Amino acid sequence: MSLTEELNHKIDYKTKPQGSLGKLEDIARQIGVIQHSLTPELKNPCMLVFAADHGLTEEGISPFPKEVTQQMVLNFLNGGAAINVFCQQHNIALKVVDAGVDGDLPGHQNLIGAKIERGTRNMLHEPAMTKETCRKAMEKGKELVRQEAHNDCNVIGFGEMGIGNTSSAALLMHAFTGYRLEDCTGRGTGHDASGVDKKIAVLKNVAQKYSVTDPFEKLATFGGLEIAMMCGAMLEAYEQGMVLLIDGFIATATLLAAFHINNKSILTHCVFCHLSNEKGHALMLDYLKAEPLLHLNMRLGEGTGAAVAFPIIQSAVAFLNDMASFDEAGVSNKS
Amino acid sequence: MSLTEELNHKIDYKTKPQGSLGKLEDIARQIGVIQHSLTPELKNPCMLVFAADHGLTEEGISPFPKEVTQQMVLNFLNGGAAINVFCQQHNIALKVVDAGVDGDLPGHQNLIGAKIERGTRNMLHEPAMTKETCRKAMEKGKELVRQEAHNDCNVIGFGEMGIGNTSSAALLMHAFTGYRLEDCTGRGTGHDASGVDKKIAVLKNVAQKYSVTDPFEKLATFGGLEIAMMCGAMLEAYEQGMVLLIDGFIATATLLAAFHINNKSILTHCVFCHLSNEKGHALMLDYLKAEPLLHLNMRLGEGTGAAVAFPIIQSAVAFLNDMASFDEAGVSNKS
Repeated sequence: MSLTEELNHKIDYKTKPQGSLGKLEDIARQIGVIQHSLTPELKNPCMLVFAADHGLTEEGISPFPKEVTQQMVLNFLNGGAAINVFCQQHNIALKVVDAGVDGDLPGHQNLIGAKIERGTRNMLHEPAMTKETCRKAMEKGKELVRQEAHNDCNVIGFGEMGIGNTSSAALLMHAFTGYRLEDCTGRGTGHDASGVDKKIAVLKNVAQKYSVTDPFEKLATFGGLEIAMMCGAMLEAYEQGMVLLIDGFIATATLLAAFHINNKSILTHCVFCHLSNEKGHALMLDYLKAEPLLHLNMRLGEGTGAAVAFPIIQSAVAFLNDMASFDEAGVSNKS
Repeated sequence: MSLTEELNHKIDYKTKPQGSLGKLEDIARQIGVIQHSLTPELKNPCMLVFAADHGLTEEGISPFPKEVTQQMVLNFLNGGAAINVFCQQHNIALKVVDAGVDGDLPGHQNLIGAKIERGTRNMLHEPAMTKETCRKAMEKGKELVRQEAHNDCNVIGFGEMGIGNTSSAALLMHAFTGYRLEDCTGRGTGHDASGVDKKIAVLKNVAQKYSVTDPFEKLATFGGLEIAMMCGAMLEAYEQGMVLLIDGFIATATLLAAFHINNKSILTHCVFCHLSNEKGHALMLDYLKAEPLLHLNMRLGEGTGAAVAFPIIQSAVAFLNDMASFDEAGVSNKS
């Protein structure tokens, strides 16, 4: 029997009607295949939250001032944000990465100083990053994940904080999928309808300025420092054989870049944790043929959807390892 | 400000865009209202799994032999079933209640012997329970929940095991909602299409035998001993001010009985944990205007959907208690 057949057999002979654990069975099978094991384990779960600023905020694309990026990083370090609460709940090691915050941050045990630049450039005037900057950010992301692998982590979530980054994500989605910007652009942190209209108008102006076909160049042109670093981190997590916990709109747009840049197989390692309420996420998941685990109308970012979904993924691994089979339990199977 | 206004204010001034935690915000608000508190707590969570046999299994309505009810209870006691795994994962105290298994069970610290009769009668020939039997089962359920309240439990899940009990639940759904039996009847533990057709034919024969209008009498006629005991337990959990974790098809059909028997307000205390894949559950939830938290294509019963959803509910309470507000964190709010 192949590993997949063995996994299917193991799942089907647990003391339950066949298929009755639904998506938990799919997740168990997927993680068994990723780890080449009938008894997979989730070890030392980690959440990397990448933070950076965006030059495009000069154009009024967010209702929050860009200072909030730095303020929220301090909130992460003080333990007061949503992602702190959910990571603590599930024993996920939370690490905050300064990929490019436009401000000075204090030293802190949970902060990884990896600032490439103080925010991106205003892409209405020039590409958000030079290729060199983008490459440096990606390499740093890879290095951080190698460190986690060294710590025996095999399941990793990706979060982000960056006022303005739903605009980057919408442009990346548009560039990679071809969907119209109207379908890629949502309320972000909380625009009203006229705010969204204004945001779309700015993004259209940005998009028509560039004609880029190379995937890496798309990332450099429209991305953010946190997005580029996360993209490198995702690619390395795949190389390290980890399970990748994919959060919402921005993390999925980042994955879209990783998928197009150099590794279509990366999707086999991804658990799509939730469907965000941010417009565009559902279409992006469709494009990737991805079925999200949760649909809780969340749209917060920071990796919160991935953290909240994590116990469901643990449930999938737990039933595979710990439930009795019909034979073991002496239970009669279907007649 | 009213409590609800205070809760809304507290939720809205957490360091996140307003509404961005979606259903977690709804759950936090609901539990705050149930507990009359801005700092609610989930204490000593408990899962009562009620087991009993069904006389109607004589008519071939399940592909599993009825002995499986008793075998699965033993599996629960040995820790090998899905509900064991998920309760252990989330520190939920699991108690198995013999409400009417047709067989002798050993003494065990996690087994509550509450056998009313050795299974129900074949309702193709006579009501499943006499009124007296049904009342005894309900009273016993209330007593068990009073015991949990005495143990300082304030959040309780309800699971069940009983070969044949999707038939009871389908008949109860039909009797309480008026939906056609074809819309109330699903695959149960795993019928194929012809098995479902046969099951529907049997249930139609049962339904046309009776003309019952009183809600309690509907429960006695079409219910099971585990369903009647669970119904009493749900009513008492509401009286005790607990949060009720509602599982799938059978638990929701039981709630439907509780709702009609004597307490419409019971719904305010219910968290609908998941949408089961069992046909009829979606319609039943619509009828109750209930929005389930999870949709994982599960259809296992035992309370598994409630147990798997529990950490999400804990997340809701945790963010309400532990996240910083904009003021506390020094984060700028929306401009």
